[in-house]
Amino acid sequence: MFTTIKTTKVYEQVILQIKAMVSDGSLKKGDKLPSERELSSQLGVSRASIREALRALEVIGLISCRQGEGNFVKENFDNSLFEPLSIMFMLNQSRPSEVFELRRVIEVETAALAAKTITDEELIELKELLGMMKDCENEEKKVKIDKEFHYKIAKASRNFLIVTILNTISTLIDSFIKDARAQILKNEGNKDIIDYQHQCLFNALSKRDSQEAAAIMRMHMELINENLIELS
Amino acid sequence: MFTTIKTTKVYEQVILQIKAMVSDGSLKKGDKLPSERELSSQLGVSRASIREALRALEVIGLISCRQGEGNFVKENFDNSLFEPLSIMFMLNQSRPSEVFELRRVIEVETAALAAKTITDEELIELKELLGMMKDCENEEKKVKIDKEFHYKIAKASRNFLIVTILNTISTLIDSFIKDARAQILKNEGNKDIIDYQHQCLFNALSKRDSQEAAAIMRMHMELINENLIELS
Repeated sequence: MFTTIKTTKVYEQVILQIKAMVSDGSLKKGDKLPSERELSSQLGVSRASIREALRALEVIGLISCRQGEGNFVKENFDNSLFEPLSIMFMLNQSRPSEVFELRRVIEVETAALAAKTITDEELIELKELLGMMKDCENEEKKVKIDKEFHYKIAKASRNFLIVTILNTISTLIDSFIKDARAQILKNEGNKDIIDYQHQCLFNALSKRDSQEAAAIMRMHMELINENLIELS
Repeated sequence: MFTTIKTTKVYEQVILQIKAMVSDGSLKKGDKLPSERELSSQLGVSRASIREALRALEVIGLISCRQGEGNFVKENFDNSLFEPLSIMFMLNQSRPSEVFELRRVIEVETAALAAKTITDEELIELKELLGMMKDCENEEKKVKIDKEFHYKIAKASRNFLIVTILNTISTLIDSFIKDARAQILKNEGNKDIIDYQHQCLFNALSKRDSQEAAAIMRMHMELINENLIELS
């Protein structure tokens, strides 16, 4: 039996090279990459190939190309997975409910993790957000605070990958249901329940009770998902 | 206040155009894309820009470029998120334990979902894999069957996004711990426990018992993660 020989394409070699620089620490977040000309002579490949590789990394969201300044490793990868995930979503003719379900799956266990690792400072910040949400009359602002509340809980899990994936999912949901959260909050009945669930979630986190935090997050996600399925 | 005007780059326009074709259904999985020349004249942009956009989509794993044949939308996106996720992982100096944790978070709830949606045929397939794992003397083969067992459970959840993310995580773990599963199975004590856990997982799925399936998957993942942390 013959095995297929994998031919490495030139742009793949360029990406491998950049990955190696990241891996050995010579390229860090925020760093400027060598110029296209430098990369081209270092690697002995055409500038067109260098440019192809750099564009690919830009689409993925790992580097940003600033006109006249050069190429930089991004500081923040919050939306790095969005482009591939959203195209995959379309090509697979996925149901929006798959995305809601994925978010539930991750957020429930993330709340459990956060209950173990959340700091006192983070609890104070969550409490502030909770107060702001209750008092807020401006719908748009309220949606922002709501997002921030969930984001802070994810961050409290101390798992960066989880934060990134949840962010991507949230952006994906917003991309196919315009103002998803705002739509749900429109319903007066939901508003009170959601405020109450946020409060209970905060209480469970304060008690560092993983099981309770997960149970409340599950109810919270189920309420939200039911409403999103109606909208989608 | 001024808001920044977002300049859309040429290659971004090309990707948007391809996304639109996917979105309206004129481009499906496995389809051949228009040639670079056609795209270039249709969109009125240079072939270099077209090539940059296509390379980017290839790196993401959404299209494959076959020498002499043209560019095709992939049939299978199992590893589409691997490249961005692995580079992000390095740039963030993430701990391997974050990846193990993410897998646990997803697999536990996925087992619960699968218990609700698994078909009789899938249960028969799982039972066969279980028998093969027990009888298997070849370590390498056993690892493959083990992966297949987990993959089938994920697929039984009927959530394609979950399957893709779990696959990516599994590849990521393998990329920094060579033969991760084989290493764990080397330990004779682990082997018996893992066989037993797989059997219990199968039983819970057969009973369509979500809670039990999740609880066993949790124990299973905890055992695996403890061992992986030692190796990493």
